[in-house]
Amino acid sequence: MSRLAIEGASYVVTVDDADTVLTDTTVVVEDGTITEVRPSADGPVDADEVLDARGRLLMPGLVNLHTHLPMTLLRGLAEDVDLQGFLTRVWAAEGAVMDPATVELGASLGALESLLGGCTTQLDMYFHHEAAHRGAVAAGSRHVIGPVFMDGPGPDGLAWEERIALMRAWPAAMTALGGPEVPVPAMPHATYTCSPEKLAEVARVLGEVGDGHRTLLTTHVSENAFENDDVRGRYGATPTEVLSGAGWLDGAAPFVAGHGVHLTPSDRELLAAAGGAVAHCAGSNQKLASGALHWEDVRGSGVRLGIGTDGCSSSNDLDMWQSMRQAALLARLTSGRPDVASAHEVLRAATVDGAHALGLGDLVGSVEVGKRADLVLLDLERPHLTPVHDVHALLVFAAGRSDVTDVLVDGEVVVRAGRSTRLDTADLLARARERGATAGAAARAAAEQP
Amino acid sequence: MSRLAIEGASYVVTVDDADTVLTDTTVVVEDGTITEVRPSADGPVDADEVLDARGRLLMPGLVNLHTHLPMTLLRGLAEDVDLQGFLTRVWAAEGAVMDPATVELGASLGALESLLGGCTTQLDMYFHHEAAHRGAVAAGSRHVIGPVFMDGPGPDGLAWEERIALMRAWPAAMTALGGPEVPVPAMPHATYTCSPEKLAEVARVLGEVGDGHRTLLTTHVSENAFENDDVRGRYGATPTEVLSGAGWLDGAAPFVAGHGVHLTPSDRELLAAAGGAVAHCAGSNQKLASGALHWEDVRGSGVRLGIGTDGCSSSNDLDMWQSMRQAALLARLTSGRPDVASAHEVLRAATVDGAHALGLGDLVGSVEVGKRADLVLLDLERPHLTPVHDVHALLVFAAGRSDVTDVLVDGEVVVRAGRSTRLDTADLLARARERGATAGAAARAAAEQP
Repeated sequence: MSRLAIEGASYVVTVDDADTVLTDTTVVVEDGTITEVRPSADGPVDADEVLDARGRLLMPGLVNLHTHLPMTLLRGLAEDVDLQGFLTRVWAAEGAVMDPATVELGASLGALESLLGGCTTQLDMYFHHEAAHRGAVAAGSRHVIGPVFMDGPGPDGLAWEERIALMRAWPAAMTALGGPEVPVPAMPHATYTCSPEKLAEVARVLGEVGDGHRTLLTTHVSENAFENDDVRGRYGATPTEVLSGAGWLDGAAPFVAGHGVHLTPSDRELLAAAGGAVAHCAGSNQKLASGALHWEDVRGSGVRLGIGTDGCSSSNDLDMWQSMRQAALLARLTSGRPDVASAHEVLRAATVDGAHALGLGDLVGSVEVGKRADLVLLDLERPHLTPVHDVHALLVFAAGRSDVTDVLVDGEVVVRAGRSTRLDTADLLARARERGATAGAAARAAAEQP
Repeated sequence: MSRLAIEGASYVVTVDDADTVLTDTTVVVEDGTITEVRPSADGPVDADEVLDARGRLLMPGLVNLHTHLPMTLLRGLAEDVDLQGFLTRVWAAEGAVMDPATVELGASLGALESLLGGCTTQLDMYFHHEAAHRGAVAAGSRHVIGPVFMDGPGPDGLAWEERIALMRAWPAAMTALGGPEVPVPAMPHATYTCSPEKLAEVARVLGEVGDGHRTLLTTHVSENAFENDDVRGRYGATPTEVLSGAGWLDGAAPFVAGHGVHLTPSDRELLAAAGGAVAHCAGSNQKLASGALHWEDVRGSGVRLGIGTDGCSSSNDLDMWQSMRQAALLARLTSGRPDVASAHEVLRAATVDGAHALGLGDLVGSVEVGKRADLVLLDLERPHLTPVHDVHALLVFAAGRSDVTDVLVDGEVVVRAGRSTRLDTADLLARARERGATAGAAARAAAEQP
């Protein structure tokens, strides 16, 4: 049995049901599970490894509920352009570089950025999901991904039946890759790229193959007004209504709606009744002018809200601290009230609520005895974190990725003193630059075509 | 003569008129002035001191166009409450601790946070301006502050004539304190706390005492709808119209309007005709639900736009990178267009446009021969900055304070490898914690009173 002690944290922000904040506290982790949370004054703990947490803040790892990690390689490739200009550049770059090896590289890069910034779990979505999972698991991440579905061939050129076959193979393939426990997800791209019949087939197949596993359904839902109009034009129904008709909201698997900016009141009722969640990507939605999710309406309807960064081609980085702050600011703007989207609420959304949305609420998302140790230490010895009047507000409105020093996933220290313990960072960055250059050249060439 | 070479920067983002980006470039600084910008391939430079900039990005220091540095001590003291709850707590805390010594401490802390994050110039506003200036100049900042005016006594308890006397004394007092060249400002709090006659008197006195100095006028303008209604009720005019009537827009001194969220179209015309600027504080305005400045309307009217953080009691930190990104995101949300507030525009607002707004455009705000060296180096060897496709987008949408390694103000290296070269940081943080505890106790006591 391995025993790790995180000793003497100045603050432990537990994110338990009561939002308890402890001071001068030691947390003991045995074989990856939190077994003790006790006052430091009780004295030192007998342990194989000790992390000195004095002057630091301990909190649960952040959960990124919607992203596309491999697109990290395309960050900044399509700026200041409208949607058509954006797609022209991004598709050209994807076509030029996104083979499985590059997807694996991009996922490692994205997972590394996430982990260094204290984000321990990512709900990812990208083609070549097996390669992406290999890359992110290598970085040490609790990485959630599954096959992507769309009616057309997509960048990977697969036929529908090949996608279904990948789905049937995924539980075993995912298990073989190792990594911390995650659900088996199915990930159709959207209701405007995947027909209702095929969406129903995906849910059915997931039900068949997911036996004995946690499962998960996710897709893009009502990201912008154009999508809602498009789907209404095709099917006379909103995206959420299409999903409901396809059997996605019958509760067989947890459901995460990516974005959910333009949900109608009845969409929210459908989602709430199904226990579904929305992955709120405030930064991406604003940057692409997709619209503004109304925090208090979504929460008021009983829909669970988590926080996502979206991919780097649209939101430019994977910084969950930015995403938390952007969500809080947007909520106050849209409501006209400075007392909605409290720091407590937003921090819960980015941790324990995200974990519950993935069906992992029993495993991670808070610092509590019995949970797996997905934990983050922040250095408080910083001017922008001094003095401390309100730790929740400090985390949501002042802290950032640069304050993260150490990160544990599933009990393993994957970031120590701001460095990955798993990857050769310099080598990874060099390879990312090389593939990035190829992607950039393809995007520029496409943009210059008449 | 002292000669400093910043050698081999991978990128120099000059923010000159053409937004030129240079690669593999060396910048030479002689006695604080940039004297050469040359290809690294031309070989090494004979210099007294060399900063190795290989693998790094060099850019002008950021200009924070509206803040209240000493309020850094009150960060997080009044969260999730409405305006009345906010003022109750903040005023109680200010009354309890904000003597000149504590203002000096808070200004040092705020200037340190600013400098570590690459912000070299701050337009500050707070009582006990002389103490604040002493604290910020000690940190090495190009710090702009002057006497505050209001009809009532204010937290410092001064009578109007004492404020006027401080104004008359300020040019000599400021010069005696040393520090990089800045304008002599006058800073009435707002048109709802300072009568039109007194605003006119302040402008007149500034004209008299500012002879031989750069001067500046600044105040809060149309921060929220309540302010506009209040001033209209008193004077039948908008805040900007009141200022115009008081002679503030006659061009004798540069004018910076703090916030400017609720400017009317005719207000914007008045400001544009006077060459005035707006300090846009997107984060503060959203957090306090003050409203949303419409970027394209303000710029379209010809008003110069700079970027501010506001004080830490409202926006919680002094991170200009956050403020840039928040401004860009908000502009896209309010316009419904992903191609407004380009990264180029936003970076200019946070550097050279801010410098021009202060009347310092000839001195700082860009990396050009002849300007004073207010410069920032960023480390690009980071996952979230790799690969580089678009340096402007990288700076506005992905970079952050944690990427800043070295900072020069007026040619002096005031931050080296992420540490202040001027201050004993640990001692400063310890003193800030002690004063913060007193402030917190006072705020809590006030909040608990019936």
